[in-house]
Amino acid sequence: MRDLIIIGAGPAGLSAAVYAKRAALDTLVIEKSPLSGGQIMNTYEVDNYLGMPGTGGFEMATRFREHADRLNCEFMTAEVTEISQVNENYFIIKTGQDEIKTRTVIIAAGASYAKLGVPGEIELAGMGVSYCATCDGAFFRGRTVAVVGGGDVAVEDAIFLARFCEKVYLIHRRDELRAAAILSESLHKLKNVEVLWDTVVESINGEDQVEKIKIKNVKTNVTSSLATAGIFIAVGMVPNSGIFNQVVPLNEKGYIIADESGITKTKGIFASGDIRTKKLRQITTAVADGATAVTSVQQYLWSRLD
Amino acid sequence: MRDLIIIGAGPAGLSAAVYAKRAALDTLVIEKSPLSGGQIMNTYEVDNYLGMPGTGGFEMATRFREHADRLNCEFMTAEVTEISQVNENYFIIKTGQDEIKTRTVIIAAGASYAKLGVPGEIELAGMGVSYCATCDGAFFRGRTVAVVGGGDVAVEDAIFLARFCEKVYLIHRRDELRAAAILSESLHKLKNVEVLWDTVVESINGEDQVEKIKIKNVKTNVTSSLATAGIFIAVGMVPNSGIFNQVVPLNEKGYIIADESGITKTKGIFASGDIRTKKLRQITTAVADGATAVTSVQQYLWSRLD
Repeated sequence: MRDLIIIGAGPAGLSAAVYAKRAALDTLVIEKSPLSGGQIMNTYEVDNYLGMPGTGGFEMATRFREHADRLNCEFMTAEVTEISQVNENYFIIKTGQDEIKTRTVIIAAGASYAKLGVPGEIELAGMGVSYCATCDGAFFRGRTVAVVGGGDVAVEDAIFLARFCEKVYLIHRRDELRAAAILSESLHKLKNVEVLWDTVVESINGEDQVEKIKIKNVKTNVTSSLATAGIFIAVGMVPNSGIFNQVVPLNEKGYIIADESGITKTKGIFASGDIRTKKLRQITTAVADGATAVTSVQQYLWSRLD
Repeated sequence: MRDLIIIGAGPAGLSAAVYAKRAALDTLVIEKSPLSGGQIMNTYEVDNYLGMPGTGGFEMATRFREHADRLNCEFMTAEVTEISQVNENYFIIKTGQDEIKTRTVIIAAGASYAKLGVPGEIELAGMGVSYCATCDGAFFRGRTVAVVGGGDVAVEDAIFLARFCEKVYLIHRRDELRAAAILSESLHKLKNVEVLWDTVVESINGEDQVEKIKIKNVKTNVTSSLATAGIFIAVGMVPNSGIFNQVVPLNEKGYIIADESGITKTKGIFASGDIRTKKLRQITTAVADGATAVTSVQQYLWSRLD
């Protein structure tokens, strides 16, 4: 019987592993990918994790994992297929191979950005294609960029980028925004933002960097080419919470309902990082979540000490 | 008129500075100490900030500040003496020398651990004297340690340390604990914890490391010497919120009332790091707070865009 199983070895899971090890909890981290780091692995450069400026995503993921390894945290490469609560005292985690008993679980399985699914998107990811304006916007100071989407995040991204980019195109497939009215009003006041209504992206093009995108007006079917140094895709995020609704309540978008304590509505199950309901999904906030969730785990275990 | 003034250059303030700069907010950080880093500066070694294992406090503070410097964040060494809200649109921050106008303020002035005020406490800080079991406990695996205090934190620290220390003394000046009953019950079940009631610490002694402490029973006035490798002082924390109650509501312990968004009850004023009401006060959670508060600042500014 483990004290704690951590599902996911991104920043939240690794930080939780470090805190749990230092708290002498008998802990196992289960990650489906053979490499730790989660979404950082797909990030070209991270410049906003305090103390490690301008660090490549792969290097950062490696250093995060090395930190956990240095403390002899235990890892298993496997995909969790089922969690079931046996009674008040423990859970069973099933993977393809194993069944593991544990007193508590921290779910840190992350979230993924929804993709456009157009040619060039994967090839130029990190080379001008970004899913996070907060993370990557600063690399495009004084340039022209495009944002794709019509929800709150897309409009916030466009307003954010307009502060320091020369020109921002907001590309939306419909003729009105889904974003909150107050955001849309703010957007329309900005002189360097141009909204391209009824428009979709057909491809993203460039040699080693994004140079232009091909767009199409869905009402007229006219296609055209738009020169841009960057394209920020803000068409949604998908929490990796598929199997967890078996044991813990999710919100309407699939995020596990939990505040910063990581405490969910199921006793003994905690949620950390991008997978929980929260305001800002960043490496720093995931790392903090891992630490705080372990504190919550400890308090839960103390309350059941026998 | 600034977009944002950040008060304090600890982990929360520095992280906020990095995020604000990357968001192109016209920002100034005001810190009373000539050195950045806050409480980290007084920490011997930090081993739980993911990606930077086993880093000296001074080095970590330096690297945090260098990150902000690399982005050309602006700093001023001064003590804020007054904040006043002029109208809905801006605040005036007074220091000894200056009056600065700003649209928003992030208060990241931190908190300090209450001291015992006994000989040896300052001299041996970081050499066996610690104020944070979560931070430093792991360095004392298999050793004997003492915890001083009788509240929730002291009892939690004792339970935490008992998992991996050979012996834990809990030293409390009264004959009963103030801690929550559930914690006290958990404590009393642990065989390697001994509570020394009605006892105070008179001095902390050792060459380069804590070796023993002198204690006195306040009822019998008998003094004795206790061999210990570490002493964890958990007699309270004091938020550095003195002047801020002019503009923002504090809770009964003096912390600024704010959740993880950093949003306080005063529009335009945000709180980050140890100074706000929160579950776990650590470097990671302070760094996350800085990032999230800047997001809240941006959203606030967008809502007032004209």
